[in-house]
Amino acid sequence: MKENQLTAVQKALEIILNSTEDFGIEEVSFEESLGRVLKENIRADRDMPPFDRVSMDGVAIKSQAFAQGRREFPIEAMQAAGSPKLSLKSDESCVEAMTGAVLPGNTDAVIPYEQVEMKDGIARILSEEIGVMQNVHRKGLDRKKNDLLISVGRIISPAEIGIMATVGAHRIKVGGLPKTAVISTGDELVPVEGTPLPHQIRMSNVHSLKALLKPYGICPDLFHLTDDPADLKSKISNLLNEYEVLMFSGAVSKGKFDFLPQILDELKVKKVFHRVQQRPGKPFWFGKRDRVTVFAFPGNPVSTSVSCVKFFFPWLRKGLGITPVEEKYAVLDQDFEFKPKLTYFLQVKLLNKKGTLYAIPEEGNGSGDLANLTLSDAFLELPAERNHFSKGEIFPYLQFRN
Amino acid sequence: MKENQLTAVQKALEIILNSTEDFGIEEVSFEESLGRVLKENIRADRDMPPFDRVSMDGVAIKSQAFAQGRREFPIEAMQAAGSPKLSLKSDESCVEAMTGAVLPGNTDAVIPYEQVEMKDGIARILSEEIGVMQNVHRKGLDRKKNDLLISVGRIISPAEIGIMATVGAHRIKVGGLPKTAVISTGDELVPVEGTPLPHQIRMSNVHSLKALLKPYGICPDLFHLTDDPADLKSKISNLLNEYEVLMFSGAVSKGKFDFLPQILDELKVKKVFHRVQQRPGKPFWFGKRDRVTVFAFPGNPVSTSVSCVKFFFPWLRKGLGITPVEEKYAVLDQDFEFKPKLTYFLQVKLLNKKGTLYAIPEEGNGSGDLANLTLSDAFLELPAERNHFSKGEIFPYLQFRN
Repeated sequence: MKENQLTAVQKALEIILNSTEDFGIEEVSFEESLGRVLKENIRADRDMPPFDRVSMDGVAIKSQAFAQGRREFPIEAMQAAGSPKLSLKSDESCVEAMTGAVLPGNTDAVIPYEQVEMKDGIARILSEEIGVMQNVHRKGLDRKKNDLLISVGRIISPAEIGIMATVGAHRIKVGGLPKTAVISTGDELVPVEGTPLPHQIRMSNVHSLKALLKPYGICPDLFHLTDDPADLKSKISNLLNEYEVLMFSGAVSKGKFDFLPQILDELKVKKVFHRVQQRPGKPFWFGKRDRVTVFAFPGNPVSTSVSCVKFFFPWLRKGLGITPVEEKYAVLDQDFEFKPKLTYFLQVKLLNKKGTLYAIPEEGNGSGDLANLTLSDAFLELPAERNHFSKGEIFPYLQFRN
Repeated sequence: MKENQLTAVQKALEIILNSTEDFGIEEVSFEESLGRVLKENIRADRDMPPFDRVSMDGVAIKSQAFAQGRREFPIEAMQAAGSPKLSLKSDESCVEAMTGAVLPGNTDAVIPYEQVEMKDGIARILSEEIGVMQNVHRKGLDRKKNDLLISVGRIISPAEIGIMATVGAHRIKVGGLPKTAVISTGDELVPVEGTPLPHQIRMSNVHSLKALLKPYGICPDLFHLTDDPADLKSKISNLLNEYEVLMFSGAVSKGKFDFLPQILDELKVKKVFHRVQQRPGKPFWFGKRDRVTVFAFPGNPVSTSVSCVKFFFPWLRKGLGITPVEEKYAVLDQDFEFKPKLTYFLQVKLLNKKGTLYAIPEEGNGSGDLANLTLSDAFLELPAERNHFSKGEIFPYLQFRN
């Protein structure tokens, strides 16, 4: 590949997805598993519901007695939720039964209080007809013992946490996470607490990246390296030994002080590609050394966000074994022109109008306009081969804000 | 209001939104603010960019010299990113300038290396024409000093974190969060680590609720109370003194052992409504005592999730001053029948087909079927007044999984 040749976005993504790593398995408390990836199948430990469960407060009777014309049923007992199962002694009486309770033995229908007159210890049923097993949620109706409830590869949400609690899966296997270093470079950067001189700016990308990784449970260590080649080399050498992912921001364009590609080469990190046919984010550099993966993103803030969402997330998700999600699409809401032969990631605001998602361009003044990101929710991916994109056309989008 | 009368869903929501509380303001590090609600306006501390910024690596010249026919420019110096501003001494020379650097004084155009031949300390420009200020991102082009960058009421995402870093807002004001207790009730419940007897089940709702609250930064304390009225009363009395939100799961239907409404009444918690015209979640009870707000959700897991998403989240968001979001809609993907005169929250899987969101019903076996929630992403809200819902119709949805 020639030095100046750009890798197409789709090709770059394919290459990255063929370079994933297995981060292993970790056991955690189910309570701390939100956002993690399940690495074991969760099965029903018993039938769901585990017993014939009363689903309305009322009285439980034997329906045959009702069918034979009986309407008044002396109350024998009270079946509360959480109490051991009682049993109706006489076919001609009833047991009061509460929602969530076990259906009492020798009964097969629950008449809700609304259809019952209670007086002097006798329940008089007002309904004209009743059904066998009415208001009873049958044992095993939802799921049978050993049924698969949640499969490997599922991202754990509050619903999965509830299910794991129900079946007693209090320690669960989840995907391990790569030990990650996020590294800014460039002498122009000062810390957030600092006051930059006129030619300086504060470092922001490492903080955005850290926040982007948080929903996956990755808590990266942050580093800043100055533009001194010897120092860069020795520090990066250490990081390569200590981390599984190095994510750089800056120092990969072709400026005299963008030493990174050369230093990585000297440190035996194999360059897989450098420069992608996209805007923003063209100078993106990707490489590997054994099991260490290096994502070197360009230094401007929007490039960094685009590249993380478009390339790092799919790489991470595949490595974690997350069940793939379908691509999402939105309708471009106005005509848009983009001349260079580059895939363009257009900043858009998504609007749900009657069930259709519209992408409203929120164009700033180029790839460096970070402030503009607060106006948008997603990047609409416009193909490189075209210049004109018409209102009403449908394109995939990458969401970076819910 | 009669004892048995149901409050319409829309009415219940209005009442709840008229009962919000102000949780105050808290100052946190910007790094820990993800998901919190901004309570101060973030403004540009200086122009963005703060200087005329070089946007391509190349050579900076005075365009007038080029216009006058000059093509060869001796290199005077190197302007690196992060270095103080240099100034071109001779109008007929150039300064090498790197992406992110200050545009050198006395220059007004950057010619990228691709259009330059460098030899023996002289840059020979190959381009046929150049523009004044080409490849320069002008000072203040994106935003002027003091421009509003992020407004009060914004939920903080990675983009906002990047901007706060850029302008040095390292300590920021965010909305305080209500001190919240999540309480399960019912003798039928055993801890997740326990082995339930045949008539018992494990407690799951409190764990789902805790997970649902996490994205907002609320970390509730969890409690379990047994079905003993005296004990319930004394413990709830303490909780009312210590917390700003009490969220119950269970004990609000009309069973003999569902003491909660009565106990809350005795503890001077004013019932605002009890029972909502919806399925699941009909027995939902809502009340206030001074500044303490009590959400008592029915005990079945799906009811709890629906009620939290439909009622608690909007209450919380309004109290936090979150900029309201538009309702979201999806297209029902198949005919559906629901006879009772109740708003029905249909479990659906959302599918994005060419920019339109389709809601595929994932019906389980009734409101208690927790396992079914793993198949769905959202509840489609079907109005109470109708029985038949046709494929192709559009309804609002509440998402509970991304």
